[in-house]
Amino acid sequence: MNLSDLQKEYEKHLSSHPFTGKPSNLYDSMNYILSLGGKRVRPLLAIIGNQIANGEIHHGLEVAHIIELFHNFSLIHDDIMDQADIRRGQPTVHKKWDEPTAILSGDNMLVKTFEYLLNYQGPNREIIAKIYTQTAIGVCEGQQLDMDYAQIPNSVHEDDYLNMIKLKTAILLGCSLECGFLSGGGHVEDSALFYDFAINVGMSFQLMDDYLDAFGDELKTGKKEGGDIIEGKNTWLKIKSHDLFPEKTETLFSMSPEERVNPTIEFWKSQQIDQELILKANEYHQNALSILNTLTQKGYNIQLLDDLAHWLLDRQH
Amino acid sequence: MNLSDLQKEYEKHLSSHPFTGKPSNLYDSMNYILSLGGKRVRPLLAIIGNQIANGEIHHGLEVAHIIELFHNFSLIHDDIMDQADIRRGQPTVHKKWDEPTAILSGDNMLVKTFEYLLNYQGPNREIIAKIYTQTAIGVCEGQQLDMDYAQIPNSVHEDDYLNMIKLKTAILLGCSLECGFLSGGGHVEDSALFYDFAINVGMSFQLMDDYLDAFGDELKTGKKEGGDIIEGKNTWLKIKSHDLFPEKTETLFSMSPEERVNPTIEFWKSQQIDQELILKANEYHQNALSILNTLTQKGYNIQLLDDLAHWLLDRQH
Repeated sequence: MNLSDLQKEYEKHLSSHPFTGKPSNLYDSMNYILSLGGKRVRPLLAIIGNQIANGEIHHGLEVAHIIELFHNFSLIHDDIMDQADIRRGQPTVHKKWDEPTAILSGDNMLVKTFEYLLNYQGPNREIIAKIYTQTAIGVCEGQQLDMDYAQIPNSVHEDDYLNMIKLKTAILLGCSLECGFLSGGGHVEDSALFYDFAINVGMSFQLMDDYLDAFGDELKTGKKEGGDIIEGKNTWLKIKSHDLFPEKTETLFSMSPEERVNPTIEFWKSQQIDQELILKANEYHQNALSILNTLTQKGYNIQLLDDLAHWLLDRQH
Repeated sequence: MNLSDLQKEYEKHLSSHPFTGKPSNLYDSMNYILSLGGKRVRPLLAIIGNQIANGEIHHGLEVAHIIELFHNFSLIHDDIMDQADIRRGQPTVHKKWDEPTAILSGDNMLVKTFEYLLNYQGPNREIIAKIYTQTAIGVCEGQQLDMDYAQIPNSVHEDDYLNMIKLKTAILLGCSLECGFLSGGGHVEDSALFYDFAINVGMSFQLMDDYLDAFGDELKTGKKEGGDIIEGKNTWLKIKSHDLFPEKTETLFSMSPEERVNPTIEFWKSQQIDQELILKANEYHQNALSILNTLTQKGYNIQLLDDLAHWLLDRQH
């Protein structure tokens, strides 16, 4: 099976496990966020891990579903905190329903992940439960840091930012692959390698996301966009720029949102901050590839992970 | 040990298990809500259950703590939904910090309950986990119903209201006593009796709360208060009144909040709706006492449960 087959396996699992219960708005809103789609990277990682360990796929699907539900819980609550109106082109849960419903459907989805976790009877149950729970705590901490840093943008440094995106995004990817591997009966001694691989892919992906938001459209279409710059969002670029040139960066970001896009992009290119970001993202990418080497030497068939890294990291938009 | 000794045991457990972690605002806000006190009814129920089963108290304390944390998670999130500024005379978490911090400290507290549940190694681990998880889902459903009913007050009937307060409040009390009993090594065949006892006490308590809000101050001080009437809150009184006299009730509640207190109280007394509420609360109270009889016949020492029922239900304010 290739990546696309595995994605389809998960979609089949998802559509055969809709939430049911009352009151209906609570459960409708939970089904709604899951119906909005997405790349399903986390379930894919879990199923790949399961398959690499030669596991029974239904155990991988169970773990995949737990983590995808956790991811969707965090989307519902993050959208409230970010006051976001749109998610994947559709109204967010708190816009389509209201904020209390969004808080509660997130809460209920989070409880559901533990219900499914407790029902899981496949290999390595206890260790999977431990990794998942610690990851869930880490993601809450990461989201809190993200919220906090938005209040104090000029006091955030590169290491803070890397730690934040690791907690907020990368560890859930690590958890997906590692727990998937363990659900296939994979050995605990090797499982940390899978965790580290996915963490490094996640870090590289997130940094490339920062890069492409500023420079991607220019590469592809010649047009500058820079949505993150307009929003004044803390990205690696803005934080690194402030670490190196605090006054200049503050001057740029004191300009009006639309006006600052071009001069900011020009400044970052003139100082080669764009190139530094590519180097940083490549560092993580190389770490990931070197872990794949180790896994190959250990006799694992890592084809699917190689495919996944290409799919996620070789992109221009 | 009497009720007050058991309360002190829990307070000792609580103060020796503070949350630690970063970022500090996330964990400070979690410790803050727990520091606001309260009657600690749920931990008390869990420890009583444990002691009735002649259990090791540390297992009862673990279960007590899990449920008290769940209760506090729900307080943090409910206060956001209710836009409440004050909890136990102090600012609510979203007021003292901000809404994102309150959402996240609730989320993190909820995850922590499952971390502790997974660490629990005492008797009846799996069945406790199952009861706790199903209860957590029920409480989310109950809170959603409460929010929904606030939007459609005139379509809510007595049975809806009783079902809502059962889910929102009573089942967590049932879960506390039953899981406490199981944590003491109590037999699964008898555990539902403990659940039902606490459910009935909880229902009676909640209904007396509705009664005392309207008539309690008058009984005690001769002064009318009626905070629930001023708020226009869905209570058993308002809903029963609307079931019996829809037009009159809507006329009363279309008056200005302060003005409607006296005529509403007078109307309810004239129609003996106050007496019906007492009867309803007594029904649950009698159910609870009859379960205590059954438990006594089965050889359980139910002194502490009897004390608890007196403490919670024999009150004038």
